[in-house]
Amino acid sequence: MGGDNAPQTIVEGVETARDEFLDVEFVLYGDRAQIDPLIHNTERITLVQADEQIDMNDEPVRAIRRKKNSSMVMAATAVKNGEADALFSCGNTGALLAAGLLLVGRIKGISRPGLVSTLPVVSSDNESFNLLDSGANADSKAEQLYQYALLGKYYATSVRGIKEPRIGLLNNGTEPHKGSKLNLEAHKLIAADKSINFVGNVESRDLLDGVCDVVVADGFTGNAVLKAIEGTASSVMHLLKNTIMNAGVSGKLGALLLKSSLGQIKSKMDQSQYGGAVLLGVKAPVVKAHGASDGKTVYYTIKQIKSMIDGQMLPNFTEYFSAQQKQAQASDSENAEK
Amino acid sequence: MGGDNAPQTIVEGVETARDEFLDVEFVLYGDRAQIDPLIHNTERITLVQADEQIDMNDEPVRAIRRKKNSSMVMAATAVKNGEADALFSCGNTGALLAAGLLLVGRIKGISRPGLVSTLPVVSSDNESFNLLDSGANADSKAEQLYQYALLGKYYATSVRGIKEPRIGLLNNGTEPHKGSKLNLEAHKLIAADKSINFVGNVESRDLLDGVCDVVVADGFTGNAVLKAIEGTASSVMHLLKNTIMNAGVSGKLGALLLKSSLGQIKSKMDQSQYGGAVLLGVKAPVVKAHGASDGKTVYYTIKQIKSMIDGQMLPNFTEYFSAQQKQAQASDSENAEK
Repeated sequence: MGGDNAPQTIVEGVETARDEFLDVEFVLYGDRAQIDPLIHNTERITLVQADEQIDMNDEPVRAIRRKKNSSMVMAATAVKNGEADALFSCGNTGALLAAGLLLVGRIKGISRPGLVSTLPVVSSDNESFNLLDSGANADSKAEQLYQYALLGKYYATSVRGIKEPRIGLLNNGTEPHKGSKLNLEAHKLIAADKSINFVGNVESRDLLDGVCDVVVADGFTGNAVLKAIEGTASSVMHLLKNTIMNAGVSGKLGALLLKSSLGQIKSKMDQSQYGGAVLLGVKAPVVKAHGASDGKTVYYTIKQIKSMIDGQMLPNFTEYFSAQQKQAQASDSENAEK
Repeated sequence: MGGDNAPQTIVEGVETARDEFLDVEFVLYGDRAQIDPLIHNTERITLVQADEQIDMNDEPVRAIRRKKNSSMVMAATAVKNGEADALFSCGNTGALLAAGLLLVGRIKGISRPGLVSTLPVVSSDNESFNLLDSGANADSKAEQLYQYALLGKYYATSVRGIKEPRIGLLNNGTEPHKGSKLNLEAHKLIAADKSINFVGNVESRDLLDGVCDVVVADGFTGNAVLKAIEGTASSVMHLLKNTIMNAGVSGKLGALLLKSSLGQIKSKMDQSQYGGAVLLGVKAPVVKAHGASDGKTVYYTIKQIKSMIDGQMLPNFTEYFSAQQKQAQASDSENAEK
């Protein structure tokens, strides 16, 4: 029920995905009266009535605690109870993150789940990069940034099929001695883990050039960088359009001749093909697509979720972090014996 | 001597500015043998020999302390001694910031000087906005962000002639309760000062749309956002160029028809007309223009420095912060008497 064009575009995307992915089943939570007439074919689509709805003005944690019959809480509860494998919404981001943390629950050993976003590498045809934390936490610790490097690595491997993803740490200079206290500490932790293909510090100006596959940042800076990239791309495209519109007859003719080129640029910068933002570090994929998502974005996001599940991302996370915990416990008790 | 095209472009810009601003005198520090032949007319230009030079690989603080005969240290010392009113360089940014802090010196009452950058408002014809701290400090306190709001206010008034500049706080949401601990605290301090026209939290995606005149940020996030905006604008323009080049005959014809429009966009995004980044909170303007600056940028930066001096920015800073200090001391001793 969440998003600007729900439930229409959700149903569209689900039906396209259902037709392509024959092993996927869908459970839609929401207002049956609104959703039912939109479905063309109910094959592998179950509709569950939800009497309430969390809207954009709801305070996230409060809404998750109080609105037990909302589509979001009901869907998250189904994931918690093992009745569904992943949670997907185009609604209130804060509420979805709260549902992920409070209902789906953290993986043992993870300090703070982080949100991973996917952005285009502009200089290449079909590359992209991941940024996390892109906004789940406003305050972060070095240990958490280190965990984001690990989570990002497994994500890039499962979903994008990159064998040894290049992990970079977002910083205000590329030299190892640069940065805030937080980043200096995180740099040491990540560099010390030889299982990570760490390319060191990266600057935000080089991200769209594909300087690495996964960029680790604290959630405050990551969010600011994500929105700066989105805002700048949109402003420049807007400026281009306006300038052409005001360029008279020759401008319009030029634009006509360049129509397909300009369309290519727009589609390159269009993030819908990269799916949604994923809360990593919880027990199942919890995925947020943009409120303005169309059916295509919904379809791509389902494809992205399928990759996470097919790529065994969650079992890999869980195994890794529980092994780490056991190791830490063993070394603790060893130290205690000494 | 600093920058990719020094001393050629520096001399070009200085001569243009000298011809326009008849009350400005210039002292150039550097290698006389290189600079002298470039000067067409020595009117109001004094050349002082500097035997050393700080280059891009020098460690900033160490270079300022050791290279006493470098052009940067000699120029900063002249400002310190009152022989010059402002310090301008296209060289090593870190070294220039260190020269500002260690030689020119902080204004009494200022905790940490911050770097202010100027960026275009894309949706308007000739508007711009200021971002500070854009990278002088990697770690900040709330009190420092509050001082940036004040410094930014005086800067926008002096240099850009804005009577009551709209000050925004960079955050990951516009609601007052959003943000990191640092930002929540800074928000309270800024909002409590009624001399500031505070528009509240602003998001990085809205900056190029002119959501405010001055954006306050911690130096780590400010730097990341600045570089994300620069990098994205440059990537999109690059993508545009490549796509058009690959679009065959019709693409080339279209580009020809749109030549002046595309030129307009490039010039809009070109930051040279906005001058350099200024270290605010030190006793004189300390200004850094891009290493790749051409003569035009050098000229604009001198114009910008002249506005700071004509607009009485420094006397205003000093008066304000010393009055604040006296007030704080008075209330301290009052409390002590109780």
